[in-house]
Amino acid sequence: MQTELRGITSITLISPNEPTVMIGERINPTGRKAFTAELQAGDLSRIAKDAQSQYAAGARVIDVNVGAIGVDEVAVLPKAVELVQQAIDVPVSIDSANPKALEAGLKAAKGRPLVNSVNGEVDKLRDILPIVAAYDAAVIALCLPDGKGIPMDPQVRFATAERILEAAAQHGIAPDRILFDPLSTTISTDPNSALVTLATARLLRDKLDANMAIGASNASFGMPERELINIAFMTQLISAGVNAPICNPNKIALAVRAIDLLLGRDETSMGYIRMYRVLEKLKVQAV
Amino acid sequence: MQTELRGITSITLISPNEPTVMIGERINPTGRKAFTAELQAGDLSRIAKDAQSQYAAGARVIDVNVGAIGVDEVAVLPKAVELVQQAIDVPVSIDSANPKALEAGLKAAKGRPLVNSVNGEVDKLRDILPIVAAYDAAVIALCLPDGKGIPMDPQVRFATAERILEAAAQHGIAPDRILFDPLSTTISTDPNSALVTLATARLLRDKLDANMAIGASNASFGMPERELINIAFMTQLISAGVNAPICNPNKIALAVRAIDLLLGRDETSMGYIRMYRVLEKLKVQAV
Repeated sequence: MQTELRGITSITLISPNEPTVMIGERINPTGRKAFTAELQAGDLSRIAKDAQSQYAAGARVIDVNVGAIGVDEVAVLPKAVELVQQAIDVPVSIDSANPKALEAGLKAAKGRPLVNSVNGEVDKLRDILPIVAAYDAAVIALCLPDGKGIPMDPQVRFATAERILEAAAQHGIAPDRILFDPLSTTISTDPNSALVTLATARLLRDKLDANMAIGASNASFGMPERELINIAFMTQLISAGVNAPICNPNKIALAVRAIDLLLGRDETSMGYIRMYRVLEKLKVQAV
Repeated sequence: MQTELRGITSITLISPNEPTVMIGERINPTGRKAFTAELQAGDLSRIAKDAQSQYAAGARVIDVNVGAIGVDEVAVLPKAVELVQQAIDVPVSIDSANPKALEAGLKAAKGRPLVNSVNGEVDKLRDILPIVAAYDAAVIALCLPDGKGIPMDPQVRFATAERILEAAAQHGIAPDRILFDPLSTTISTDPNSALVTLATARLLRDKLDANMAIGASNASFGMPERELINIAFMTQLISAGVNAPICNPNKIALAVRAIDLLLGRDETSMGYIRMYRVLEKLKVQAV
């Protein structure tokens, strides 16, 4: 399966056995006090810089989320999408819980963007799938059956994926326009967290030949040396078929290239070595 | 399958789904100029310290190798084994290419040591298996068919394991006294290196229920930021069934505990958190 996303003129292909595509997650006020305050004050000056620095560190899709108290997402999200695509010719991932904001973002986006996200809830499918279809977008589909919490059975998550696939088909959305998210939960609250995520990912890969996105850094919540756990988990996820992680490339890009190297997706080792050089240069510039 | 190694009174159990057992590799002159010079001068004072520091960082088997030009291994290896077990009550791994040195080491070792190593060569099987049997030891079996280089076909490596298993049985050595080594080669010279190692490990796990040792840091040879590649590869190896990596615990122990955590082998997360605290304490002491 090959998922094609597009920027203004650029194309990002997501496909098994190709180098992993990083979806840059930094343009998001969650946990970023300064950015939240800026958004609330109508200051969008950080967005172009954040898009560029993530692109420099290897992201080939840029997620855009401006959801915070006191921010009118319907007005701000399209502006943020435009700022990203003015700064970098890259596909965007339009990230909001508000369908009206998603639609406003889709109107502003050039190329073929990603919608982040839909899940198995009846309301969500009804609200989100028609706009994904109308704008010829792709969509992240969370393996979340309903509003009643995250199931810890891989088969239940997988069954949700199948249900979303069917609903999408009814809207004319082909499987290659869906990135499934097998869902990540916090290990410190359930020791089986990672195992369930990985088992779900393997089902999605083996039974649906699915491409997969996931934001997984929450798995290490509450633990010391979180980045080490994140690298090990990313290794397992990519080895299990996740090929479009939603991540901070400035932190994890070299690990992602190391994993691709180990998986035989970097024939000459140059993907890894080039990324090493780029990150060294960015470090020097940051000093 | 459960492999039982013993120190003077201590027991080290190697078994699937149990926390990974690290075999500490530091007592080895390869690549250590100062230690090589000390061995050549008959100075064994570093050995006890190296055993203790690896044990503190979580190693539960200590490999002992004194092979260097100008060192009489038959005389020195048993002394080194004694020094390790005087410093720490832990099973030893007796590491030499010289069968006479291995036998001298076995005579000196208390408990049930590991012999490092045998492979599929006729001469090796003939020389090593009888002494493994005579001393009721366990043995690392490299999936190396002959002296003609390392095969890049997992099936050929696996067939070698089966052949060694059979030869061992003829000497009365049960499968639970063998740790198979699926062999690691350098990625920069063959992009399929890690894939072949991992496929071999999965065959050994799925078809023989085997316990596995491996020294894998050579995979990253020639690359920048080797430790990052080593952590990702270790994640893949342990996820594929390797449960007794030969490694430098002072460098990789926290990653190993993170992997166990992700694999559901650390119910309360305390294995990881305890290791984090121990390593922080060792860092403070080292400053």
